[in-house]
Amino acid sequence: MQGDLRIDEALTSGDGLLAADLIGVAVFAASGASAGVAKRLDLFGVAFVGFIAALGGGILRDLVIGAVPPLAFADWRYSMTAIAASLAVFWLHPRLARWRRSVLLLDAAGLGLFTVTGTIKALDAGVPPVGACLIGMLTAIGGGLARDLLTGEIPVVLQRDIYAVAALGGAILVTILREVAVADALTMGVSALLITGVRLIALYRRWSAPVAAP
Amino acid sequence: MQGDLRIDEALTSGDGLLAADLIGVAVFAASGASAGVAKRLDLFGVAFVGFIAALGGGILRDLVIGAVPPLAFADWRYSMTAIAASLAVFWLHPRLARWRRSVLLLDAAGLGLFTVTGTIKALDAGVPPVGACLIGMLTAIGGGLARDLLTGEIPVVLQRDIYAVAALGGAILVTILREVAVADALTMGVSALLITGVRLIALYRRWSAPVAAP
Amino acid sequence: MQGDLRIDEALTSGDGLLAADLIGVAVFAASGASAGVAKRLDLFGVAFVGFIAALGGGILRDLVIGAVPPLAFADWRYSMTAIAASLAVFWLHPRLARWRRSVLLLDAAGLGLFTVTGTIKALDAGVPPVGACLIGMLTAIGGGLARDLLTGEIPVVLQRDIYAVAALGGAILVTILREVAVADALTMGVSALLITGVRLIALYRRWSAPVAAP
Repeated sequence: MQGDLRIDEALTSGDGLLAADLIGVAVFAASGASAGVAKRLDLFGVAFVGFIAALGGGILRDLVIGAVPPLAFADWRYSMTAIAASLAVFWLHPRLARWRRSVLLLDAAGLGLFTVTGTIKALDAGVPPVGACLIGMLTAIGGGLARDLLTGEIPVVLQRDIYAVAALGGAILVTILREVAVADALTMGVSALLITGVRLIALYRRWSAPVAAP
Repeated sequence: MQGDLRIDEALTSGDGLLAADLIGVAVFAASGASAGVAKRLDLFGVAFVGFIAALGGGILRDLVIGAVPPLAFADWRYSMTAIAASLAVFWLHPRLARWRRSVLLLDAAGLGLFTVTGTIKALDAGVPPVGACLIGMLTAIGGGLARDLLTGEIPVVLQRDIYAVAALGGAILVTILREVAVADALTMGVSALLITGVRLIALYRRWSAPVAAP
Repeated sequence: MQGDLRIDEALTSGDGLLAADLIGVAVFAASGASAGVAKRLDLFGVAFVGFIAALGGGILRDLVIGAVPPLAFADWRYSMTAIAASLAVFWLHPRLARWRRSVLLLDAAGLGLFTVTGTIKALDAGVPPVGACLIGMLTAIGGGLARDLLTGEIPVVLQRDIYAVAALGGAILVTILREVAVADALTMGVSALLITGVRLIALYRRWSAPVAAP
């Protein structure tokens, strides 16, 4: 099982996918670091919140599927990317405001990618379909949840618009495509694009989930 | 060890105990979903807080005893029960107010049941007695702790009345009865009833734990 | 791997180091219990926050390196020390004010010790150097982070002065000394003293990490 996971990591990391994975890490780290700067945390605090925002979801995923040590500690490129992106935000944040639109785009891409790799890793580790979908979604939203808890906020993912639901839908699609034996590369590409697309349309059209009647 | 755990799960889940276990999950999910509705979370947020309140303690327990993937992800009935109960609260909550007394009763039953199964699973996994008692108590209170952290509150279990202490006392009783080789069914029944009973009496008589002198 | 860990624990716990380890646990428990008393938590809440402040970092470390059940549950001396120290603070806290200076000294010693043992355990479990340094630092700061989250505060370690950075520097030193095959006792002694010393100088000279320009 561990062996398979490592092979899977090698496959998904070896090619252009490693770059995509690290872009997701960098974008999520930047979101955490921005929250830290806004809360007036010090240099360490900004880097720490960035690290957790980028890698917290993956650490949780790896603990839950028994892949220890988690990839965040087993491969230095993940932690170094998260820390470098956080430090860049710390020093450059006044100049980053104009990139806001790009960051939202990259965040949607990160959401798609983290969901897809999380779901596939869980399936490969032998988790049944329903559990694997939940783990895939948690991989994508876990870091943002931890970021908000560390900075004293009620997690934004619980409060507004379509974010986690896009991830959950994509995780279900991954699981179905796997079941009918579609090739992994196709499954991953289609599902990640779908999640990213739904997220971007939800942003553009201001879709949001209902709140309970009072 | 893993094998024994699975057998133990089969035994405790196979019979009427599965129903009891799922009732505990449903009640704790309802408590989480109610907290989410009160904080004006959206549909996803309500379901998520319900899921964590119901299954967070068990996920922590399974990680700590090395039973991966945790039961919450390995058996779809757990997650689906938690989500169904949360959605019911989301849509029906105005009509649920009159059930408040029943919910407190069921919550006390859930406290007893989660403590007992948590302690026994830890002992079966080879955890020594003191650690098993702590894990049993954490199984029962962990979900409520996570619910309060997600909704921005200092956990209520740390602040008022007799709740966790009843769980801890029951976990100690389970461990002692096991040590003297009482049959499992009797151990579980007596201990769960005792925890539930103490919790209900504490509610009725407004017992509370002392606060430090200023 | 598990076997080596247990041997390592026996070595580091068997001698005078067990006493040092438990002093660290007691001091961190006292810091958690004091925070609980200040927030008017009840007796259970104070003991619980003390337990988590003392043992939360080590539990996280053990989960991440796959040493289950974590030492906090596998060895009763750890939990009992944490609980005893918390109860002492609950009952004696008005008389503890005059010990404030000693507590800061012991806290700095705990920081050094927890970082060093955390880093070495991670390296022994086969975690690569960068990951082991991060795990060592998390072992030392994790409990304080959890203490602050449980009591509704943004973690103090993210906000002010030199604390985690001293731990991270010490973890890097441990890893380098190990790499060049310095004897473990020397590595641990030198690194723990360095962390403690830097922390105390930072306190005395009011060093603090920079905050981002607005």
